[in-house]
Amino acid sequence: MDSKSKVSAYLAEHRDRHLAELIEFVRIPSVSASTEHKPDMAKASEWLADSLRKAGLDNVQVLPTAGNPVVYGDWLHAPGQPTALIYGHYDVQPADPLEQWTTAPFEPVIRDGKLYGRGATDDKAQLYTHVKTVEAFLKTIGELPVNVKFCIEGEEEIASPSLPAFLQEQAELLKADAIVISDGPMHDEGVPSICYGLRGLCGFQIDIQGAKNDLHSGLFGGGVANPATALVQLLASMRDEDGHITIEGFYEGVNELSDIEREAFRALELDDAKTAKELAVPELTGEKGFSFLERTTARPTLEINGIYGGYQGEGLKPIVPSAAGAKISCRLVDQQDPDEIMKRIEAHIEKFKPAGVTVKVQQTHRGKPFYISPEHPYIHAASRAYEAGFGTAPVYIRSGGSIPIVEVFSRVLGAPVVMMDFGLPSENMHAPNEHFHLDNFDKGIATLCQYWQELQAAPKADA
Amino acid sequence: MDSKSKVSAYLAEHRDRHLAELIEFVRIPSVSASTEHKPDMAKASEWLADSLRKAGLDNVQVLPTAGNPVVYGDWLHAPGQPTALIYGHYDVQPADPLEQWTTAPFEPVIRDGKLYGRGATDDKAQLYTHVKTVEAFLKTIGELPVNVKFCIEGEEEIASPSLPAFLQEQAELLKADAIVISDGPMHDEGVPSICYGLRGLCGFQIDIQGAKNDLHSGLFGGGVANPATALVQLLASMRDEDGHITIEGFYEGVNELSDIEREAFRALELDDAKTAKELAVPELTGEKGFSFLERTTARPTLEINGIYGGYQGEGLKPIVPSAAGAKISCRLVDQQDPDEIMKRIEAHIEKFKPAGVTVKVQQTHRGKPFYISPEHPYIHAASRAYEAGFGTAPVYIRSGGSIPIVEVFSRVLGAPVVMMDFGLPSENMHAPNEHFHLDNFDKGIATLCQYWQELQAAPKADA
Repeated sequence: MDSKSKVSAYLAEHRDRHLAELIEFVRIPSVSASTEHKPDMAKASEWLADSLRKAGLDNVQVLPTAGNPVVYGDWLHAPGQPTALIYGHYDVQPADPLEQWTTAPFEPVIRDGKLYGRGATDDKAQLYTHVKTVEAFLKTIGELPVNVKFCIEGEEEIASPSLPAFLQEQAELLKADAIVISDGPMHDEGVPSICYGLRGLCGFQIDIQGAKNDLHSGLFGGGVANPATALVQLLASMRDEDGHITIEGFYEGVNELSDIEREAFRALELDDAKTAKELAVPELTGEKGFSFLERTTARPTLEINGIYGGYQGEGLKPIVPSAAGAKISCRLVDQQDPDEIMKRIEAHIEKFKPAGVTVKVQQTHRGKPFYISPEHPYIHAASRAYEAGFGTAPVYIRSGGSIPIVEVFSRVLGAPVVMMDFGLPSENMHAPNEHFHLDNFDKGIATLCQYWQELQAAPKADA
Repeated sequence: MDSKSKVSAYLAEHRDRHLAELIEFVRIPSVSASTEHKPDMAKASEWLADSLRKAGLDNVQVLPTAGNPVVYGDWLHAPGQPTALIYGHYDVQPADPLEQWTTAPFEPVIRDGKLYGRGATDDKAQLYTHVKTVEAFLKTIGELPVNVKFCIEGEEEIASPSLPAFLQEQAELLKADAIVISDGPMHDEGVPSICYGLRGLCGFQIDIQGAKNDLHSGLFGGGVANPATALVQLLASMRDEDGHITIEGFYEGVNELSDIEREAFRALELDDAKTAKELAVPELTGEKGFSFLERTTARPTLEINGIYGGYQGEGLKPIVPSAAGAKISCRLVDQQDPDEIMKRIEAHIEKFKPAGVTVKVQQTHRGKPFYISPEHPYIHAASRAYEAGFGTAPVYIRSGGSIPIVEVFSRVLGAPVVMMDFGLPSENMHAPNEHFHLDNFDKGIATLCQYWQELQAAPKADA
């Protein structure tokens, strides 16, 4: 039996155990946004470290950061070969609204070949393809075609506050020739893709304070500014009827789409009516003059993620609320800079803030957009690996999501970032009933097995 | 000892017991807005019926309605004299936000001569002045100057859904020459007032539905309508920069304020800077061209009572929320009709509803505005009674609040409604740390003792 067959046979033989382990991993409610889950973060990191050790990795450590720890492990016995740093995250999004889950978010179950549970596709199953690929190589032929390092964080879902400093401090330990990340969706079912661009993020919170407590809307209504109304006016001032953001300077640093790019988007465009039906909305809408794919990957946005103020319970409570607020995030593209955008937003709020209330704005998240040339040799290597794993060449896409740390990795470690996604857009990332198609667990591992071979063979890249 | 002195002596002697009873009453968490408090509604109604019986009233009954029961009792042994129907309510507002209470809302305590607890001023203490006045008469001189009936409901805070039908059905039982209500604030501390106008109410809820579940704001943001943004746009479209409501036809039926009225308002106007300081807002704002008192009593409003959608927890959850909504109430004046206003609002929403979402509107509350001539003999009688109870003549005011049932009483029973308020505007009705000044408990009872005498002496009124 050749090396490749040995690895394949091992994976087939141990598949049930691998899935059982994955279920164990998803069962840990490692919600980084909520302090009550702090003990689960420790549990998840220890579980993962243990899993890396069992896979045969050396030097496995749970390394402290200012926040949740980073799990590290390496295998560096391929002298002269490239070193790949595998990045992923063991933290997950909050699970609410709980009542919309068919089965409980942290009691993972397999239905119709899909694993349901919070974090299934984002990022636990995708991350686990890497662990099991390494295990399969080391437990069969005893070596990998390249050197690998794992760097798995626990704060990706809260925008990686501790990782940039960690990367700076551990730059020597983490030094690599390529950074490989599997943390997003492929273009579509059966259509693998290589993502060469990510949107950046500027997250902020607006808090509007009116009177010191809720007021009777009969006795005070009309005579005192209503913070919810003030919020509504302020937020409405940020957008025009055509869906353009009206904050002065917001679009600075955004590239015009070239005819070639627009043509490429057109080739990939999904059926709007079908997407609308899947999402159960009357129609797809957005910034005038752009298609769905352009709007969601190549154009910046300003989205209200949450809005709140006053009485939300059963029945009516006729009050003028004392406070209202909103959580907002902008997705950024091209040369947009989150700190610069935040200044523009602050200036807008200063100019448009309604009278009679106090308005506080706080930037909570920042991440720069990312771009890598689709012509990079390591990207070409990934393309060949996908063809082997999925039986079809991948399409080249940009993603609307943000992994701010991608840009940081690229900048701090000075290495190209290769995004090899094995999720699907329909898998409810960040939503109830998140799941992962287990078919892609196998195909993902097959792709990675091939990728390490391709990387060994690829021309040495200049980062 | 004359009759008056006997009654006064009795009240002084039993004051501690009366306050202890009031505390017991406030302790019952009779929150009508919340189904979980259903048993407390029964408990409060039984407690009150028992209290009426002990006061010496006849025919005390807890009468069923479609919702919470009405507590009834009467004393009809003054033939040839007017019959006064005393209306009040034993239900209270929800207590949240709980964390803003200094002491627990349903563990009433007396601090600095004030009784703190949810429902203290709205309406339990004010209602209880009536019960104790009747008790004082009956336990001393054995009779009242006039006939009285009590009609105490348990759904005022949810806009009295069952009472109109109840009044129709029980019109014979409830027949009266005057309806007396103590359920609001006086003009100011030491300034008793007679309220001759109330604002009406049109309450509604807007629910906006986007995609069937929350979506990842990176993958879908910009390409799918955001229900929170749609809500913000829709609500912002209802109001212009000067605070005028822009819903077509909204101001139909609103009287222009006459010069005489504006002069009367000016005479009563409080110090804006002082009010702003008390409320802890930078300034008082509202509809351009009107004063604070005009805005809060003689002008209609559209207030957001609650707004919600998406993620409200700790940290960031970068989603496009699947739904957003708002609870809104309009205060109405003069000839505005809540059902007519609702049609105007629905037409506005139909015209301005954003694309890509579905919008549902539901009217939840309705109440017509109310007005009685300040020249009515029973109003003059009330003025003299206040002068006796508080040592100063009352001012004549309109209130910005709504007691929709006032208009219904006046219409269904065909009798004048006399509002004799003993609360204060600073007592946090509908807000945390609601309280009642116990000084006004005594003065209120003294006023009522005098009022029953005055009513006996007043010229027979044509309702």
